[in-house]
Amino acid sequence: MVQVNQNYLKLKAGYLFPEISKRVNLHTKKHNSLSLIKLGIGDVTEPLPNSCIQAMSNALKEMGTQSGFRGYGPEQGYLWLREKIAKNDFLLRGCDIEPDEIFVSDGSKCDSSNILDILGSANSIAVTDPVYPVYVDSNVMTGRTGDPLKKGGYEGLTYLPICEDNDFLPQIPQKKVDIIYLCFPNNPTGATITRDELQKWVDYANNNNSLIFFDAAYEAFIQDENIPHSIYEVKGAKNCAIEFRSFSKNAGFTGVRCAYTVIPKELRGFDSNQEKIDLWSLWNRRQSTKFNGVSYIVQRGAEAVYSAEGKTEVKNLIDFYMNNAKIMKSSLEKSGFKVFGGVNAPYVWIKVKDDMTSWDFFDYLLETTNIVGTPGSGFGLAGEGYFRLSAFNSLRNVLDAMERIIKI
Amino acid sequence: MVQVNQNYLKLKAGYLFPEISKRVNLHTKKHNSLSLIKLGIGDVTEPLPNSCIQAMSNALKEMGTQSGFRGYGPEQGYLWLREKIAKNDFLLRGCDIEPDEIFVSDGSKCDSSNILDILGSANSIAVTDPVYPVYVDSNVMTGRTGDPLKKGGYEGLTYLPICEDNDFLPQIPQKKVDIIYLCFPNNPTGATITRDELQKWVDYANNNNSLIFFDAAYEAFIQDENIPHSIYEVKGAKNCAIEFRSFSKNAGFTGVRCAYTVIPKELRGFDSNQEKIDLWSLWNRRQSTKFNGVSYIVQRGAEAVYSAEGKTEVKNLIDFYMNNAKIMKSSLEKSGFKVFGGVNAPYVWIKVKDDMTSWDFFDYLLETTNIVGTPGSGFGLAGEGYFRLSAFNSLRNVLDAMERIIKI
Repeated sequence: MVQVNQNYLKLKAGYLFPEISKRVNLHTKKHNSLSLIKLGIGDVTEPLPNSCIQAMSNALKEMGTQSGFRGYGPEQGYLWLREKIAKNDFLLRGCDIEPDEIFVSDGSKCDSSNILDILGSANSIAVTDPVYPVYVDSNVMTGRTGDPLKKGGYEGLTYLPICEDNDFLPQIPQKKVDIIYLCFPNNPTGATITRDELQKWVDYANNNNSLIFFDAAYEAFIQDENIPHSIYEVKGAKNCAIEFRSFSKNAGFTGVRCAYTVIPKELRGFDSNQEKIDLWSLWNRRQSTKFNGVSYIVQRGAEAVYSAEGKTEVKNLIDFYMNNAKIMKSSLEKSGFKVFGGVNAPYVWIKVKDDMTSWDFFDYLLETTNIVGTPGSGFGLAGEGYFRLSAFNSLRNVLDAMERIIKI
Repeated sequence: MVQVNQNYLKLKAGYLFPEISKRVNLHTKKHNSLSLIKLGIGDVTEPLPNSCIQAMSNALKEMGTQSGFRGYGPEQGYLWLREKIAKNDFLLRGCDIEPDEIFVSDGSKCDSSNILDILGSANSIAVTDPVYPVYVDSNVMTGRTGDPLKKGGYEGLTYLPICEDNDFLPQIPQKKVDIIYLCFPNNPTGATITRDELQKWVDYANNNNSLIFFDAAYEAFIQDENIPHSIYEVKGAKNCAIEFRSFSKNAGFTGVRCAYTVIPKELRGFDSNQEKIDLWSLWNRRQSTKFNGVSYIVQRGAEAVYSAEGKTEVKNLIDFYMNNAKIMKSSLEKSGFKVFGGVNAPYVWIKVKDDMTSWDFFDYLLETTNIVGTPGSGFGLAGEGYFRLSAFNSLRNVLDAMERIIKI
């Protein structure tokens, strides 16, 4: 009798974004007067950089010729792409990351959930609260949590609240944890972390043989020179941290699909005899066995992000979205909202007024302004009473949305 | 202390194809006289169909415009692609598969290993022997086997030998199994299965609440009209089978990356209380949480496979490779080899002569002819003494390779 993975049955309701889609679909069926403005899902809206289009177009032409055709590529990604990543994203920032420590993939969502494959199921896990739901759900699915708790969240996970009281910085937990998920610039709060604060976590991990998953998907939005783009800018991180990066938010690859994960060769886990096991080899084996590499065409597009033209185009995209964020932040403040984020991240995180819950505000905003945002409580218990708005949209839509909000 | 997934430590040596690459690299460093002909990995060599190039080129242009840009797509794939798949690959063959039972992905290697995510770890597993190594390794990695056995293989797996004695058809095992992997046309043996033989497995699965994973990656190579292309051509299969399909081998997408998996809505697994749980919902949840869809550009390329021009181009590709297979089969037979497959599949499976082992023959063939093949023993214990040659190559290389082999 074929048995299902019983852990899936612990998962609560739908994943956040499908639930939002459902409510929006219901709403649009009822009302058609005012055009919908989606500031919910963190999805880019601007066209791909021309340099990426050109590079992919050339790759496509090659694929149509006998001499230029490419079949299976290396599961880890082509070396020419890994070299450009190592140089531009790490060496130029003083981080000593080698090309073969970089594993190219089709997305950070996949990587940040698949990474659990190579780790034992008894590891204790810490996540921030609020948090990107994928970190939590992938742990539930793989049996690393207990049952859902009545108040929200799951038994067995260590939640590190990030809120106004601690400037949205997670604090070292009293209970020892084996794996810590950190995402900075933070989704959903837009908060950042300084080198000194990050050093505390790296030291904690090294002192406790813990592992940090550092999600830097939003690093391109950092404006302040003192904020680290990579965890490897911090001393000792190569001994305790895996970093996830993506082309989704800098070059607008959400529909193109390319990302990468850094697994330093120094990283060690432990087997049941407490012998050290190198994680690079396990991940390399995992990817060789369960993955077949990213589209050649897409990898050529990602490579173009590092060309001179590509860098300028990405900078323009970032400037564009960050200008949106600036407009949103000031408009929302004018409307009397307490606003966080939006300075080094494409998300503004607002405190909901009048004791509404996050979902109340979601429905209220949708009903009165036709604007879709993301309820903070969808990201965790400590997100209750907050609301995320994304700066990924056209300038016209952002101005229009802010005008609608100011009116309510 | 962060613990690794102890199951990874059970994995034997390298995955087959990296091991082949290693030996080939060593060989080419020593000898440069005769050009290498690779008939090892089943990777296509001909340019992409023009209709696919055109469709992807149009999609790329869209992605460079404000109005045509697409961000995140549905995790399950775009409906326009799923509709064409359902119609062409299933409805036209009399199989009642709905578009929403189709989950588009970036590869069958991923799907056929990730599918284990939604199933309990106590299920008993049967694989053929020889077998595509990914089925076995993904079970080892997820703790569904015991330790490696001295003679080869892993404790706890049920191996179904496919060999000359049974016409390469797996026989129903005496020990009850919960999950059965079937791949037809078969990789590596090139064998096929009739409707009647497949019906035995479907009946077995339905009578025992077992689940069949049917890998039909090579269905496009079927020449004989009586051989089923899909397991859903067999009565009752929608209640017990998941099918994996790929654009890799028909349209040459190995470097482009697109595949799909069919999970019928009728399919049920069981929870620990023996209550029925529908597998479609679990896989839908898995894909929504751990996957972010296939590149929009690539999906447009896959869609073009179903255009009139695309169908003709794919047929020409298949005819081309099957002509190679025909030449290989007759040449190898002339050289005194006993040859299997190569009629409805792009692989010929030859019996090694003179009591050599498969790896002996690999080294011998490489040394004397500079031809790379795949040792049968790399696919399992019962593959020992056999050797796989792939028909994926240029006509010139195939003719050249056969000439070299005839000389030895």
